[in-house]
Amino acid sequence: MECVFCKIVAGELPAERVYETDKILAFLDNRPVNYGHVLIIPKSHHENLIDAPNDLLCEIIMAAKKLAPAILKATGLNDYNLVMNSGKVAGQIIFHTHFHIIPRFEGDGYGQFRIGEYKEGEKEKMAAKIKKYL
Amino acid sequence: MECVFCKIVAGELPAERVYETDKILAFLDNRPVNYGHVLIIPKSHHENLIDAPNDLLCEIIMAAKKLAPAILKATGLNDYNLVMNSGKVAGQIIFHTHFHIIPRFEGDGYGQFRIGEYKEGEKEKMAAKIKKYL
Repeated sequence: MECVFCKIVAGELPAERVYETDKILAFLDNRPVNYGHVLIIPKSHHENLIDAPNDLLCEIIMAAKKLAPAILKATGLNDYNLVMNSGKVAGQIIFHTHFHIIPRFEGDGYGQFRIGEYKEGEKEKMAAKIKKYL
Repeated sequence: MECVFCKIVAGELPAERVYETDKILAFLDNRPVNYGHVLIIPKSHHENLIDAPNDLLCEIIMAAKKLAPAILKATGLNDYNLVMNSGKVAGQIIFHTHFHIIPRFEGDGYGQFRIGEYKEGEKEKMAAKIKKYL
């Protein structure tokens, strides 16, 4: 077993666990964007969103809904991001499905979305393309 | 009705819709991080993750799982982020629950997570605090 998160699930690597059910586990990210940054993973191994079973994904979202208020209380903050990175270019480092909950404070330097715009006619074209592949 | 997303749901504001069910709607973000940036929202009005009903959140995640491969095919990309911003400091602009799917390419300038670390003993303290509030 090479996967770091599978090793954490199996208890072969340490982690600060904060919540778990039969199917999912939440623990502190070792390299946090901010203190209180939590990862939620399915206990079974899947690489990303697309190959994770629906029931696990629902359970992860339910866990996020439960954990977010606790993380905010614990950190004294009000705002957070829920993030799933799929693929290396998107920032995924461990290829075991995981969602980040990142509590945020003003000026934490993590930044906001870059805001772009569509060129004339490109938006309609993009929507049509996506619909074609659904 | 003041909410921009509620107006889109009601058809009072235009949007490039790409997918919908009875309960949720997906459309192109008007100000995309990258082309193909899609928003998924519940049709009913909720402010964020915590106040959205579980069945809607599950349906949003299922929609993300369905949409992500179509967005990647439409853009010719392989990687993406699934992001929910809760609160102004976290980048939330419209206070109607929404998830972003953002297709990513190398050098798109959107950036990666800042990597931090816990000071000695702080990780255990943070985990204990979060568990206390669960």
